[in-house]
Amino acid sequence: MAAWSERLAGVRGVLLDISGVLHDSGEGGGVPIPGSVEALARLKRSQLKVRFCTNESQKSRGDLVGLLRHMGFDISEGEVTAPAPATCLILKERGLRPHLLIHDGIRSEFAQIDTSNPNCVVIADAGESFSYQNMNKAFQVLMELDNPVLISLGKGRYYKETSGLMLDVGAYTKALEYACGIKAEVVGKPAPGYFQSALQEMGVESHEAIMIGDDIVGDVGGAQRCGMRALQVRTGKFRPSDEHHPEVKADGYVDNLAEAVDLLLQYAHQ
Amino acid sequence: MAAWSERLAGVRGVLLDISGVLHDSGEGGGVPIPGSVEALARLKRSQLKVRFCTNESQKSRGDLVGLLRHMGFDISEGEVTAPAPATCLILKERGLRPHLLIHDGIRSEFAQIDTSNPNCVVIADAGESFSYQNMNKAFQVLMELDNPVLISLGKGRYYKETSGLMLDVGAYTKALEYACGIKAEVVGKPAPGYFQSALQEMGVESHEAIMIGDDIVGDVGGAQRCGMRALQVRTGKFRPSDEHHPEVKADGYVDNLAEAVDLLLQYAHQ
Repeated sequence: MAAWSERLAGVRGVLLDISGVLHDSGEGGGVPIPGSVEALARLKRSQLKVRFCTNESQKSRGDLVGLLRHMGFDISEGEVTAPAPATCLILKERGLRPHLLIHDGIRSEFAQIDTSNPNCVVIADAGESFSYQNMNKAFQVLMELDNPVLISLGKGRYYKETSGLMLDVGAYTKALEYACGIKAEVVGKPAPGYFQSALQEMGVESHEAIMIGDDIVGDVGGAQRCGMRALQVRTGKFRPSDEHHPEVKADGYVDNLAEAVDLLLQYAHQ
Repeated sequence: MAAWSERLAGVRGVLLDISGVLHDSGEGGGVPIPGSVEALARLKRSQLKVRFCTNESQKSRGDLVGLLRHMGFDISEGEVTAPAPATCLILKERGLRPHLLIHDGIRSEFAQIDTSNPNCVVIADAGESFSYQNMNKAFQVLMELDNPVLISLGKGRYYKETSGLMLDVGAYTKALEYACGIKAEVVGKPAPGYFQSALQEMGVESHEAIMIGDDIVGDVGGAQRCGMRALQVRTGKFRPSDEHHPEVKADGYVDNLAEAVDLLLQYAHQ
């Protein structure tokens, strides 16, 4: 593999995944990943532009940022690209009235959305609310539509909480796709449009940007398909087999955000 | 399409799906489909061999047969090919100890199976037991195995109860397949081995047998891939769009089991 100086040359902007990079979520909001609070602070003191790009769809953006600030992270709501606000824009643009299969923690994001007489289903990481009854209700709504529209906030397979690996929304989206014979529209990583909007909000072209995430497919593969570079951290849901993934090869593997920031501050922007 | 006399010539054995053909399941065991009790009785008085081939995995074979007999159907346990007994044979043959993600109604079928220290997951139509917690537990068991084995009792998309369409096990199997990056082994329709065992138990070759079911893919397509003929009934989960399915064309569409039996008694075995 080329030297880090070559791999990181010309990077002007950094997109950061949140869960598994900054912190591990879990009971009471979870715990920061060692070194990440300080690493983020150093990154933000540098000349590099920084933005957060998350698939978090169980908590509202405000609640998520509140938790992270409480852990000591330098982060504000305006710096975060999150799927629920992006979905609300789409719903309004297209006149869609969703049946919501979501966690109560994110319901406030949809407060301004008309949910009467639904003509689509929005599915997010509903966690414990993924009961058979709730899944069946969403299925029945879709089956009654002439042109069933399913919008999925991300399509992650699983994530890591302090208590262990947890099924993510993608598994349940697959279930509804199969049952209804349809394909969901994904709002979140790895959808190209989602990365593009984060880049636009950061004001950096894709070839000058790098993604840092713990998901070899959703973060690394998705960002690379948009023309960005991408590093995988060996924290969060990282598994050793990711470094030999059959389809995706990161531009670099680092132990954690702290090592990524060390390398970026040394070699980027040259 | 050819005349019925041609399409049904040489049929010696009939495989019958149960749910959606004999009865619609639901509260209190469901209700018989009008005409089916009498049609089955006529069929069994004929020279045609008859066997039942079901993907029912929420009730034990004994409970299912008890319900149907109570509705007036002439059926006994020994005439039914069902996925749970077939799965138990496989588990024993291969020394597999399952973690069971199943409905309590079928737990008795697995009474003789060692479930300590699981080295596979068996998923059936768990209904209300498809909670997030139960799905996540099955997911975690699979992720901890070096060689994860997932056995799915059928892979149906949905079925019809008296209260409406209900998500079937296939949707949840897809969810686990996606989350774990694996492929399930299906015991049930449309797996060719499952149809073959039903044919063997009936003592009829595939080219002399016909399947009657309400599922265009699982019943009709699956049976045809085994060299059988297949009729779709317009009861149960049948939808008008099934008659224009992009991949599967039945050898005939009939209003219900009664019409199928009328035709068979007139044209088969000639």
